[in-house]
Amino acid sequence: MLSPREAVRMLPSYHPPLGGRDGLRLDFNENTIGCSPRVLNCLRHVGMEQLARYPEREPVEAAVADFFGIAASQLLLTNGVDEAIHLLCQTHLEPGDEALIVVPTYSMYRIYIMATGAQIIAIPAGKGFCFPTDEVCNCITPRTRLIAIANPNNPTGTVAPQQDLLRLAASAPDSAILVDEAYFEFYGQTLLPKCREFPNLFVARTFSKAYGLAGLRIGALIGNTDQIHSVRRVSSPYNVNAVALACLPEAIADQTYIQHYVNEIRESRTRLEQALEASGIYFWPSEANFVLARVRSTAFIEQMRRRGILIRDRSNDQGCEGCVRITLGPRAHTDRLLAALQETLEELGMTQEQGASPA
Amino acid sequence: MLSPREAVRMLPSYHPPLGGRDGLRLDFNENTIGCSPRVLNCLRHVGMEQLARYPEREPVEAAVADFFGIAASQLLLTNGVDEAIHLLCQTHLEPGDEALIVVPTYSMYRIYIMATGAQIIAIPAGKGFCFPTDEVCNCITPRTRLIAIANPNNPTGTVAPQQDLLRLAASAPDSAILVDEAYFEFYGQTLLPKCREFPNLFVARTFSKAYGLAGLRIGALIGNTDQIHSVRRVSSPYNVNAVALACLPEAIADQTYIQHYVNEIRESRTRLEQALEASGIYFWPSEANFVLARVRSTAFIEQMRRRGILIRDRSNDQGCEGCVRITLGPRAHTDRLLAALQETLEELGMTQEQGASPA
Repeated sequence: MLSPREAVRMLPSYHPPLGGRDGLRLDFNENTIGCSPRVLNCLRHVGMEQLARYPEREPVEAAVADFFGIAASQLLLTNGVDEAIHLLCQTHLEPGDEALIVVPTYSMYRIYIMATGAQIIAIPAGKGFCFPTDEVCNCITPRTRLIAIANPNNPTGTVAPQQDLLRLAASAPDSAILVDEAYFEFYGQTLLPKCREFPNLFVARTFSKAYGLAGLRIGALIGNTDQIHSVRRVSSPYNVNAVALACLPEAIADQTYIQHYVNEIRESRTRLEQALEASGIYFWPSEANFVLARVRSTAFIEQMRRRGILIRDRSNDQGCEGCVRITLGPRAHTDRLLAALQETLEELGMTQEQGASPA
Repeated sequence: MLSPREAVRMLPSYHPPLGGRDGLRLDFNENTIGCSPRVLNCLRHVGMEQLARYPEREPVEAAVADFFGIAASQLLLTNGVDEAIHLLCQTHLEPGDEALIVVPTYSMYRIYIMATGAQIIAIPAGKGFCFPTDEVCNCITPRTRLIAIANPNNPTGTVAPQQDLLRLAASAPDSAILVDEAYFEFYGQTLLPKCREFPNLFVARTFSKAYGLAGLRIGALIGNTDQIHSVRRVSSPYNVNAVALACLPEAIADQTYIQHYVNEIRESRTRLEQALEASGIYFWPSEANFVLARVRSTAFIEQMRRRGILIRDRSNDQGCEGCVRITLGPRAHTDRLLAALQETLEELGMTQEQGASPA
């Protein structure tokens, strides 16, 4: 009787909603107004030949590397960041190894680590979800082969100091250090230039968030040339689709669009944080395109949905009891969000006194 | 010093040309005239929202399952067949396990099997590349966890009898049996309906070949519901891009296009096989959209390229010394192919006497 490997039998199921998301979708940290119009124009010119031929990743890899200011040999384009994580886990982890994550964090680290049969060491974040650098360093053993960190972190929006991440990289030279910068554009700080200096440092980027291309599935894994060469061996040469490859150079070229969008999101972030503060709802100051807030009400999400706003329940994440994650859109979407928020708080009788208790 | 797992260090490099393929591309078994025009029309209507949102695989999975006459729970859409192979290997193989393949065959089986740390048992095909059923059965041990078979096989174009494949499935109930039917449409026989009866049988399909959608990256893994559930756990929920999902239902709907295309390819296959026979070039009768021929000349590929025709050198595959693989296109492309072939044979002085020696 065929049965999967024990590591696969033990995997948690990750099954986000894959349909029926009607309303203003502030639940997946997507770009709610879409990509640069120049990308859409590019899509309109994709021809029959590009659909019929196996995609040719290398010229676009060179263009993206150039944009990042690194060598093409330091970069692997991937089928979204998920594939970057998957390939990095497969390159470095096997049964008997240990992988460190700081929780709460992005769910897929756990799944791809566990699928290899390696053991997860989950270290709780500190007070205010601060990055517990000392605790992580103390958990490094000779069996540690991967430390995966989202920075800014999801679902908290918090960040780890760059010096702390580099200290980790120096403390665990036999371990891959993945710094997942999916939300980089909303934060502005990156460890990308450090990949040459720290041969065990990997940075992941995505075009799903600020660039508004989640549907196309394009991520990038960046690291030392030799290390990326190893990861590339486990990857299909045709992992990124031809439409993504056709559109990506245009997406990168339109930085005016990205800058404008990011500025609007940052303004929306301030507005939402001020509204939460005024209502006495506890939240964690965010460096990403979302805010995690402790609403302490099971009816909150449903009340927001009735008002046409989808937000994400994060109450099952460690330390996130009663929390929701709210994605930020540009100005007009934030107007709708704040109006629905106000109505919901009134309807649920969530006065300042109730909400203001410490997290 | 960070170093990848030993299994990854031992991986062979698979590095097909990823650019610079100018000419009539008969080297990758692609559809040389492209997909149904209805698919291109569908692509033209993909909107900003579909690009910006995470793709929603499930409704399209249901439509494809319906087309195949199976339950949606029996099917996983994948990022090309490569990902189906990758996920199946990761679900069932780990160090200490054995995986059987019959060589020569599709290169990626070896890579994804080896990446898990499992041991490859490579069984040479029989005379005329016939499927060595008895030899495969004799290699099954309690450690066998995967048997991967391309049917029709690549690069040979030969097929294994269905009864033999089912005999394997019955002989190795603890092992996953992958029957990769990437070239099904050109052959016409499938084991897909047997997936219910044989709970260890998996069938892979692709939309890269007959459907002309290699650029979009869409494959499917079909099997018993419980087994597919296990494979799905290792997969990203967003593995297939939104453009592929938008176009796939239309691609499936236009069976008139597929039937017409397949008929032309079969006619071209007969024409090429007759031309090879007339020239005394040894070839293996094919059930796929390509023909493997023993040209015994290193100059042959270059001479064809000079005439604008790209074909693939397969001389490094086991038992394929001096062989090239020629992809079939429809009528007009076959006219060009046969003209270039005739000129090349004359230029190289490959008379009937030289070529007709046994393979």
